Amino acid sequence: MALDFTHDPARRAWVASAQAAGSDFPIQNLPFGVFRRRGSNEPWRGGVAIGDQIVCLGAAQAAGAFEGVAARAAQAAAAPVLNGLLAQGPAAWRALRHALSQGLCDGVAAPQAAALRGALVPQAEAEMALPLAVGDYTDFYTSLDHALNIGRLRDPANPLTPNFQWLPVAYHGRVSTMGVSGQRFRRPWGQVMAPGAKAPVLQPCGMLDYELELGIVVGQGNAAGEPVALDAALDHVFGITLLNDWSARDIQFWEMLPLGPFHAKNFATTLSPWIVTMDALAPYRMAWTRPADHPQPLPYLESAGNRAAGALDIQLEVWLEPEASGSAPSASRLSRTSFRHQYWTIAQMVTHHTVGGCALQPGDVLGSGTISGPGAGEAGALIELSKFGREPVRLEAGGERGFLLDGDTVVLRGWCEAPGRARIGFGEARGTVLPARAA
Amino acid sequence: MALDFTHDPARRAWVASAQAAGSDFPIQNLPFGVFRRRGSNEPWRGGVAIGDQIVCLGAAQAAGAFEGVAARAAQAAAAPVLNGLLAQGPAAWRALRHALSQGLCDGVAAPQAAALRGALVPQAEAEMALPLAVGDYTDFYTSLDHALNIGRLRDPANPLTPNFQWLPVAYHGRVSTMGVSGQRFRRPWGQVMAPGAKAPVLQPCGMLDYELELGIVVGQGNAAGEPVALDAALDHVFGITLLNDWSARDIQFWEMLPLGPFHAKNFATTLSPWIVTMDALAPYRMAWTRPADHPQPLPYLESAGNRAAGALDIQLEVWLEPEASGSAPSASRLSRTSFRHQYWTIAQMVTHHTVGGCALQPGDVLGSGTISGPGAGEAGALIELSKFGREPVRLEAGGERGFLLDGDTVVLRGWCEAPGRARIGFGEARGTVLPARAA
Repeated sequence: MALDFTHDPARRAWVASAQAAGSDFPIQNLPFGVFRRRGSNEPWRGGVAIGDQIVCLGAAQAAGAFEGVAARAAQAAAAPVLNGLLAQGPAAWRALRHALSQGLCDGVAAPQAAALRGALVPQAEAEMALPLAVGDYTDFYTSLDHALNIGRLRDPANPLTPNFQWLPVAYHGRVSTMGVSGQRFRRPWGQVMAPGAKAPVLQPCGMLDYELELGIVVGQGNAAGEPVALDAALDHVFGITLLNDWSARDIQFWEMLPLGPFHAKNFATTLSPWIVTMDALAPYRMAWTRPADHPQPLPYLESAGNRAAGALDIQLEVWLEPEASGSAPSASRLSRTSFRHQYWTIAQMVTHHTVGGCALQPGDVLGSGTISGPGAGEAGALIELSKFGREPVRLEAGGERGFLLDGDTVVLRGWCEAPGRARIGFGEARGTVLPARAA
Repeated sequence: MALDFTHDPARRAWVASAQAAGSDFPIQNLPFGVFRRRGSNEPWRGGVAIGDQIVCLGAAQAAGAFEGVAARAAQAAAAPVLNGLLAQGPAAWRALRHALSQGLCDGVAAPQAAALRGALVPQAEAEMALPLAVGDYTDFYTSLDHALNIGRLRDPANPLTPNFQWLPVAYHGRVSTMGVSGQRFRRPWGQVMAPGAKAPVLQPCGMLDYELELGIVVGQGNAAGEPVALDAALDHVFGITLLNDWSARDIQFWEMLPLGPFHAKNFATTLSPWIVTMDALAPYRMAWTRPADHPQPLPYLESAGNRAAGALDIQLEVWLEPEASGSAPSASRLSRTSFRHQYWTIAQMVTHHTVGGCALQPGDVLGSGTISGPGAGEAGALIELSKFGREPVRLEAGGERGFLLDGDTVVLRGWCEAPGRARIGFGEARGTVLPARAA
């Protein structure tokens, strides 16, 4: 999409905190989430982040902040999940974004500002929920560097399966254990077969890992048997969250042949609470290329538009916070990379997902697959950084990790920034490993 | 569970058709589904099959047919999906079953019969819906003969992956394309890599297949991190449907390494409309054994109760109906087997599913995996019967099939019968292959 007034970096909100240095939520962002006052029994409801505040969409709508298409969108977004808004499609999302950008802009007429001002709730007083009723969760595997890093651990001579360069590999994931940032889960149990052993053992996971991913939120769906063409694919995407695809490596190795991961992935998946819209991300779209010596995509995965602006330059970091023991907790950065290196684009994932006949529905989530960049320190999982645990990663704050320990908190962070553009952020996806259940 | 009065084979319903020879729905069955009058705009609502009729549970409840726990269960089951009933747990399910069995029994007092009689809707005038809001769908792979048949096509010397005998292999499936009997779907497209080719081609599936499975419907769920012990597992299962896991073999071969099937399975999955309860199936539970020269299960998958009554003797058939061309359609039976041969029991599937930390929720569906028995003509998929399509199956009605053709309808049927017991049936799961979408 073309940039419009909502992207103007000179634009300022009358909510002062939106202009704070390093704020994830300036007026150019306006991400959607679901919240209520912390500790209350209020209904969960949709809101939009601005600075350190949340615009309660239902309250703003009741106060007359919106008209027409935007009003209908705000009404739908006032629900405990955003699926209704998502189903309305990009024209509705854009109308609401435009109305919010106008109403929150410094200098707007007093009555319009008042309707929004009365609907503000401080983020510090709110708790966030998973903002979607997720119908299906698909996890992709679309980072070349991740696939190479993992593949070389398995078979140095043949690190990639033959299909990797021809299609965005994907498999179905588990919805029931998806949680929002702040998720705390027990270390999973599972069958593990030790090298050379004659029988597997049921035991707590000994190689617990995270995976840095994006959660791609489907807006409009498609009917079964009606594929989405590549150049229409992004009209079916509402926005993006951070996603941690927690992984139990030792369990995965034993269970995954022939039909894929199961216990290794279905105990927890953590999403950040704010969905950054594709509209907000528009300034950070960039050219997508495929190395000339690699196979170029089949026609259904190829278009000029995808070449011109299919990649997304989202900066990503993974931080580890060991359990505090006496002194203050100290965080160490484990890696930093960008989503721009991904081998397949979001549009290619959507189109491939639907080409066979599969129906997507509003609120479905597509995990991007682990995001690992080409450089040192750009890997999106501990198994890569620590070479299968054999070379533990030194923590900046002291200690080391081959895999995660009980009490560890993993924090994903993401943002976009570039000269001449407004910085926008994703907030964080934070999850904590609790000790395994007693036998 | 012990058998009770509802299983008495001498019991007769005052609905005469329930006693018809070969009826799937005598008073000893009482399966649950969701229906409305065909072609109407009535709300979908829960019902129970008796003979050729359906008891509308909401209408019966409003007429005073139930009391106490049974009344609350009927109220929940009057909804457009049965999830509310499922969440109430086995005591509620049983109370409603008992009340229905008493109220429908020949000789019951006139007022009680009248409340149910006024709530009857002929099945011939009804259309059925998927009776569940399915949160997650898991597909298992638990038939030894299926795994051997498939494995030998791939690697005759090593047909089984090492984990097969140690755990019930499973992977996550797609919910959005699940449908109820009568589902019609387009032949899927997908990438296929021909032997010796240098690049894959996007084309309609050339090896379309079915898989004969059972759909195991989760009743009560479990919290994440709180596994279900083997002897409690069946308290978490409400009942069973037939399930056709349609499969695109040529697409599957190319896509499935390293993370499992995706397009090969996510275009359609067909369930029979009636959920036969575990209570109704109790007379057909039987001893489960593991050949002495096979590894015996790890302790969490082993119990005296599972040994004594873990297997289920459900008779199963697959029929093929080619598209009618002028003359009347003619059906051919492709295979017949029993679920009693399955290598892992339903309780073992539930316990294994939850042992790692995964949460099950009411309305989740577990596919049993393809059900192939040990004998000739007992395989649950065409790829096995036709040896990869190389030895097409001769149809009783003429013609042959290596894989499915456009216009083919596949019908799964299931029932239980044994001397001294009432025969109960599942109805059918019927699905039709439409031509692929034009390019």
